[in-house]
Amino acid sequence: MLAAKSDVQVDTPEVRVTEWRLAPGSATGHHTHEMDYVIVPVTSGEMTIVAPSGERTKAQLGAGKSYFRKAGVQHDVLNETASEIVFLEVELKPLTT
Amino acid sequence: MLAAKSDVQVDTPEVRVTEWRLAPGSATGHHTHEMDYVIVPVTSGEMTIVAPSGERTKAQLGAGKSYFRKAGVQHDVLNETASEIVFLEVELKPLTT
Repeated sequence: MLAAKSDVQVDTPEVRVTEWRLAPGSATGHHTHEMDYVIVPVTSGEMTIVAPSGERTKAQLGAGKSYFRKAGVQHDVLNETASEIVFLEVELKPLTT
Repeated sequence: MLAAKSDVQVDTPEVRVTEWRLAPGSATGHHTHEMDYVIVPVTSGEMTIVAPSGERTKAQLGAGKSYFRKAGVQHDVLNETASEIVFLEVELKPLTT
């Protein structure tokens, strides 16, 4: 499996924004979200989500249609389609004051 | 001047995501950003920014190229081009624990 490409666009005390590019046949690798996050799809597409249990589900992305998730999500994200998938991950940093 | 159209996509205790659609000849109207925010352009384009002083500047948007601003920004945002401009505004809500 190819590795997805990531590029940090913003990294401040408040927030980190990472661009993810998943070529056909690539995956992010299994990971745990340590922060609450918003996904903003740049392309439309279909992702394959693999849970720690191995269960596979499909998720539709619509360009410009965002969604929010709480920290703690664990999964691998695969692109099993023939088109590149691009999205931004906006991670909300916990304040440490 | 036409009014830009807005649609709230996400509204949780942590974050609010608003889609803004600026048709040619439209504007958001003067406003103050009460929260830190990230802009994620869905389209590329050129915005005209009008400061409270009346000073006008141009700002280039690149689809999928995000940027961060601290709360307190005051401006009007105009689309003086011939193409629709679409972007998402991700507002980071201050925690009130």
